[in-house]
Amino acid sequence: MLPFKSLIQLDKSSATPVFVQLSNQLGQLIRAGTLASGQRLPGTRQLAELLQLNRQTIVAAYDEGLAQGWLESRSGSGTYVAAHFPDVKPQPLLPGQSETVTESPQDKPGYLFETNPLLVRPLLTYSAGLHLDDGFPDIRLAPMEELGRAYRSYFRWGNPQQHFGYADTKGHPLLREQLSVYLNETRGLRTKPDNILITRGSIMGLHLTCQTLLQAGDRVVTGETTWFGATMNIRKTGASILTVPVDQHGMDMDALAELCQKQRSVARPIRMVFVTPHHHYPTTVTLRADRRIRLLQLAEQYGFAVLEDDYDYDFHYLSRPILPLASADQRGMVVYVGSLTKSVAPAFRIGYVVAPTALINALAQLRRIIDRQGDPMLEFAIGQLFKTGDLRRHFRKSLRAYHARRDHFCDLLATELKEVVQFTKPDGGMAVWTTFDTVIDMDSLALQASREGLSLASGSIHNPPGQRLNGTRLGFASSTEDELEQGVAILKKVVEKFRYTDSR
Amino acid sequence: MLPFKSLIQLDKSSATPVFVQLSNQLGQLIRAGTLASGQRLPGTRQLAELLQLNRQTIVAAYDEGLAQGWLESRSGSGTYVAAHFPDVKPQPLLPGQSETVTESPQDKPGYLFETNPLLVRPLLTYSAGLHLDDGFPDIRLAPMEELGRAYRSYFRWGNPQQHFGYADTKGHPLLREQLSVYLNETRGLRTKPDNILITRGSIMGLHLTCQTLLQAGDRVVTGETTWFGATMNIRKTGASILTVPVDQHGMDMDALAELCQKQRSVARPIRMVFVTPHHHYPTTVTLRADRRIRLLQLAEQYGFAVLEDDYDYDFHYLSRPILPLASADQRGMVVYVGSLTKSVAPAFRIGYVVAPTALINALAQLRRIIDRQGDPMLEFAIGQLFKTGDLRRHFRKSLRAYHARRDHFCDLLATELKEVVQFTKPDGGMAVWTTFDTVIDMDSLALQASREGLSLASGSIHNPPGQRLNGTRLGFASSTEDELEQGVAILKKVVEKFRYTDSR
Repeated sequence: MLPFKSLIQLDKSSATPVFVQLSNQLGQLIRAGTLASGQRLPGTRQLAELLQLNRQTIVAAYDEGLAQGWLESRSGSGTYVAAHFPDVKPQPLLPGQSETVTESPQDKPGYLFETNPLLVRPLLTYSAGLHLDDGFPDIRLAPMEELGRAYRSYFRWGNPQQHFGYADTKGHPLLREQLSVYLNETRGLRTKPDNILITRGSIMGLHLTCQTLLQAGDRVVTGETTWFGATMNIRKTGASILTVPVDQHGMDMDALAELCQKQRSVARPIRMVFVTPHHHYPTTVTLRADRRIRLLQLAEQYGFAVLEDDYDYDFHYLSRPILPLASADQRGMVVYVGSLTKSVAPAFRIGYVVAPTALINALAQLRRIIDRQGDPMLEFAIGQLFKTGDLRRHFRKSLRAYHARRDHFCDLLATELKEVVQFTKPDGGMAVWTTFDTVIDMDSLALQASREGLSLASGSIHNPPGQRLNGTRLGFASSTEDELEQGVAILKKVVEKFRYTDSR
Repeated sequence: MLPFKSLIQLDKSSATPVFVQLSNQLGQLIRAGTLASGQRLPGTRQLAELLQLNRQTIVAAYDEGLAQGWLESRSGSGTYVAAHFPDVKPQPLLPGQSETVTESPQDKPGYLFETNPLLVRPLLTYSAGLHLDDGFPDIRLAPMEELGRAYRSYFRWGNPQQHFGYADTKGHPLLREQLSVYLNETRGLRTKPDNILITRGSIMGLHLTCQTLLQAGDRVVTGETTWFGATMNIRKTGASILTVPVDQHGMDMDALAELCQKQRSVARPIRMVFVTPHHHYPTTVTLRADRRIRLLQLAEQYGFAVLEDDYDYDFHYLSRPILPLASADQRGMVVYVGSLTKSVAPAFRIGYVVAPTALINALAQLRRIIDRQGDPMLEFAIGQLFKTGDLRRHFRKSLRAYHARRDHFCDLLATELKEVVQFTKPDGGMAVWTTFDTVIDMDSLALQASREGLSLASGSIHNPPGQRLNGTRLGFASSTEDELEQGVAILKKVVEKFRYTDSR
């Protein structure tokens, strides 16, 4: 008999059950040829003694092998390695094709292929250490226990074909229902579940909307400063972007009206206007109420769609935030896009589009050929957290934490960095738009800061070409007050060096 | 004092902790005005007695209210409803805008908008009752317990910012590593993790590849019969589709060679060929080895990309399946797309693209503006199941079950329906391609069958326009042998009616 005791190594403290470990290792011995086809295995009692295991463990391991077909049971005589081993031996396509890997994989394809320069942009990610990021949430506050509980209940209960089969492309019915109520209550919308498409983050909502509404050659308007995720999606359709100035009250509506008129006169009408009215990205200013109404009037007058990206409506620190454009839209001019990834955690990719049903249906048709459906477990879990109130409780808790962090961070900026940084305290959101003294080169600043252990964006993604805003977003939400102090201390130290070395 | 005992209803058997229930209900009383701003709440000891709860439960519920800001603690005097209740009162945009919902939501948008007729196709879904579907897996066999365990470990352990923050657009490193090993072992590929992009189902792989490689006006070849998910994605780019015949050995390579020559001569070269060589969709035939080699040669000669959709390679019932085209690709001509959704369950949307790194990078750049990243929990869980061997064990178990189901189903077709159905026993996959006697109208057949409790596809999505194949796919994998017998009995009964009513 083979020396099973030395061949088989079991780890009773492992998360993998012992019978599974044993079955795996028997399978490996067979594949390696150590156990040959037709060979008889020790009896279960005998092997149990040898390995000092319960006999039921051996029976379970053998049963696995029988179920998988690499063991056979012969009645009255025991368990054998299968005579016709079902392991597949695929046919190589080329004669002499080696089974061992020698060539390195290809780097470049053999067909014509051009990368799209539009899409080559830096990807913002979390930093493990100290950071003043683009405005990300503090994941440490997220309701993980509640989410874990909702996931567990999804795994445990219900019909598996319903829970894990193909699902509705528009999203889990529970989430669409709950979200509809939530949006109507908090944002003054008038949605029904049929007006909602659940997406994977707000970016999928932008993507589907641009791909559905725009064609090559169309004209789209954004602010002079704007979110690169939107401009990339607009340009991908072949549409061109025209910009209007953004001041401390948001996008300039007189400039937009003039542009609409001009474009109509050259038969190149505006097809869409992209706005982030709650907090303009990146500068965080709020679009004033009268400008919002003017924007809706212009949309009706010129027939363009308003793509309203309300990415951080859940975070405002004034008691009377202005309702979204979509709340006052009487004629179906607004496509309203939002997200919960900034309110919970980026890995929980739940975004949504609110629009007339005809558009929602068209967006869903397109989504089918991209990823068919979202994640029904996640959608159920978030729906459940709306239902239990856990999510609203979480929003309120983090709102309070972020409010305190914003105040503390702005105090720090005003005291520690007042000579080089200009900013306005934002009414909401998760980041402060800061502009630095032109003595300071933003790219070098980011580099120097990272050497001192502080990660921050240089702002190059926010600055329109040809302008030298020397600005960047500094996110306060994902750091505690203590961490913010440490971050600002590093920033101060690095800035001092610039001022010292500046010879003017 | 308010009659708290009757106002508050707690359910100790609920999954929601009692203190959360209590805190929710106090919040509701405040929002409803029953508890007014500034009002003092009972002491924790007093309320505990009233509600017959542990005092710690009351303390925890009050703490929630304090954290959320709707309660205030005044030192030495107790807990009060906050004087400045932080509930937001948003400003309506339009004067006189009603807070109550009276208007019905819009059905049609106010801007110009056309639906894309390309995208309007029926969506295949699971049926709850008896069914002979398009070839879906049996979710009852899926390793749910193991997946649930992997999910739990993801929730419990590790740094939350790493686990739930922004993740790598190309997929979780564990899964890319494990998948690379698995593909190299089972399919003779020579991948490294850098050659792999994890997608959401194979359809996202097709979408990204078509959007990246094709431009409007390009020519793409598919079989005369083919998968509508691919044709929809190809046409969405503005490319046109040319077709070549498919016989019992797959796509006709002489016809393809002739077409390549012809298209080159008119300066409209073929840019891509889409194939499902393992089991041609929908007819399940296997592309013969010599034709595969010829296809690769043509790709090199004419410079087109081969999009190989290997959607069901894990299910073959012969001991020597032919390796994919990608295994013999020396020049980087093949983009290899696969999926685990057919091998585990559709809700676990894991697909992948294998290609030269330059293309993988470009696909990832595009994916960023569509959904940014996949689901790190799911990707981790599937990677973990590869690592423990659970997934390979599951593949082998379901392979054996499906093998037996195929044999049983084909026996049933051959005995019960031999006079009206023609088919060839498939070498693998999850469905049999059947063609019915032309006496039988397939749409009516599907309708009649559904009235008798059997859901089946009419095949209209499989038949190229202008041909009357009268064929459909009948999936056997998702039904037990007993369910297959019941399904075939209904089919037989319905078919008899057609033959009886046919007057010829």
